[in-house]
Amino acid sequence: MVTIPAFSTVSADLEQVELKMKRSLQTPNKYLTDVLLYILESGGKRIRPALALLATKFGQAEPERAISLAGAIELLHTATLVHDDLIDNSLLRRGKTTLNARWSGGATVLAGDLIFAQSAALAAETENVRVISLFAQTLGTICRGELTQLFAHPWREQTREDYHDRIYSKTASLIATATEAGGILAGLPETQIEGLRAYGRNIGMAFQIIDDVLDFVGDERELGKPTGSDLRQGTVTLPTMYFIQNHPADESLARVLDRLETDEKVIAEVVARIARSEAIPASLDEARQFVRAGKDALRMLPDHPSREAMLALADYVIDRKI
Amino acid sequence: MVTIPAFSTVSADLEQVELKMKRSLQTPNKYLTDVLLYILESGGKRIRPALALLATKFGQAEPERAISLAGAIELLHTATLVHDDLIDNSLLRRGKTTLNARWSGGATVLAGDLIFAQSAALAAETENVRVISLFAQTLGTICRGELTQLFAHPWREQTREDYHDRIYSKTASLIATATEAGGILAGLPETQIEGLRAYGRNIGMAFQIIDDVLDFVGDERELGKPTGSDLRQGTVTLPTMYFIQNHPADESLARVLDRLETDEKVIAEVVARIARSEAIPASLDEARQFVRAGKDALRMLPDHPSREAMLALADYVIDRKI
Repeated sequence: MVTIPAFSTVSADLEQVELKMKRSLQTPNKYLTDVLLYILESGGKRIRPALALLATKFGQAEPERAISLAGAIELLHTATLVHDDLIDNSLLRRGKTTLNARWSGGATVLAGDLIFAQSAALAAETENVRVISLFAQTLGTICRGELTQLFAHPWREQTREDYHDRIYSKTASLIATATEAGGILAGLPETQIEGLRAYGRNIGMAFQIIDDVLDFVGDERELGKPTGSDLRQGTVTLPTMYFIQNHPADESLARVLDRLETDEKVIAEVVARIARSEAIPASLDEARQFVRAGKDALRMLPDHPSREAMLALADYVIDRKI
Repeated sequence: MVTIPAFSTVSADLEQVELKMKRSLQTPNKYLTDVLLYILESGGKRIRPALALLATKFGQAEPERAISLAGAIELLHTATLVHDDLIDNSLLRRGKTTLNARWSGGATVLAGDLIFAQSAALAAETENVRVISLFAQTLGTICRGELTQLFAHPWREQTREDYHDRIYSKTASLIATATEAGGILAGLPETQIEGLRAYGRNIGMAFQIIDDVLDFVGDERELGKPTGSDLRQGTVTLPTMYFIQNHPADESLARVLDRLETDEKVIAEVVARIARSEAIPASLDEARQFVRAGKDALRMLPDHPSREAMLALADYVIDRKI
């Protein structure tokens, strides 16, 4: 697991969250439990639970409920990844084999469902109906977003607005829920809860744009997957949108997005062309705007170590390499 | 939709439940919404929401919350069916094509997830943390049961206890949750809540045994699927267990369960042999015992139209043909 300096004030809590998640994935079948724990450990930087915990520290959240909230958030994220990898038929995530690469589709569907269930159980442990309701709505937003993407217009017709809707559903909505729910559990005033949500949403948008940029310019070993994976799946992300704007007649790119191109050398060349283009700085600039808006939203929050940590995380989101 | 006479006292509420479920499955994408509503309409007899509603009538549940609970229960059931049909690769359910028969696996996974999300959202609308928590636990029980089945021992090693665990997870747990949650929302004393749960669990066990019997002796047109589907999938249910007990050396049955038999005539002959055997009355007898235990549990409940309806439903469970 990658540790992020900004999270030092909640590192002890994050260990509790790990324990709680592990306990919640125990089953009577040892093999099944081992696989569920393997999925959990393929997990990333625990940004979502850390943000939820940081948000709770602004006020008076009951510690055990804060841990449950953070665990619920990360399990929801984990469950969606399990189903996503199955749907995309991804074989690697962060350098580890995905569940669907080892198991049948059926078992993978059910493992994801079970992680959803355990996420819901931890959310219920917050005993806060508003938090639980927010959770359910967010799961709905994520699923509707994914379905909309499956039934999306052809790539030629996709607008910047479609992209923003998509990354909001996919990433920003859950990060916004993490910070908002933390604020709710902490009993903060509504204006501060709104500030936390706006911070989470904006940071989430930036986070996904950086993900989409790294898919072109990242280090394959550090990412744990080949670059250009979005392109290979016919998915148009922000860098590709900027690139098309400046090179509307790029025939090889069109062939890749139409999934007609089978020559790996041609595909890699298209990926490299976008990676070297002005589309990357333009995308990074857009991510920076979201980060700025996220930091601005924190003006609603008082001076506090959590505020410092959130400001530092905002910078990390832009500077990260994986 | 089939209407069941025992449910006449809640038929107006059931219409509200249908409306609430339909509203909750609206999406901005008309095609997607139509498909989700098609799935909902492939639904069956609405036994689970009717039982939840009947249970709420024993006390003072806020009407809107009772409707939300009933909708949440049925959507949870619907979501598990969508994923089950995908996992089993079933092409028909109640005579209608399944979602996975029309859509890609990925879209089916996500449609199921979205229905789970909407179920969770309706559960949250009960604003009762105990009910919400029970819901999350039940989803966990259902998923763990399905996963256990996927990783089950070979059919030869399966015990009656394995079968009981399996049908509890698959069917009885959600029916028990429907009646228990109804009692909780109604603010009933704990002994009555326990009585309602025991009724639901026993009726649920009987219901699944009858389902497993009908898979051998039911009318294919009325069931909307071919008989012997469990056997064809290598799944040993109660009738097969009783049959094996009396005919341990049946070679053709072993070949079917090992999925080595490809001759449809031989398979149909094995199905017919079990259907004509003493395994069917023995299974029906076991179902009747569960029904009796379920009726007994209602002794904890006061004389009330809901109690009459639940007793009538208990008889219906045994007598039903589909």
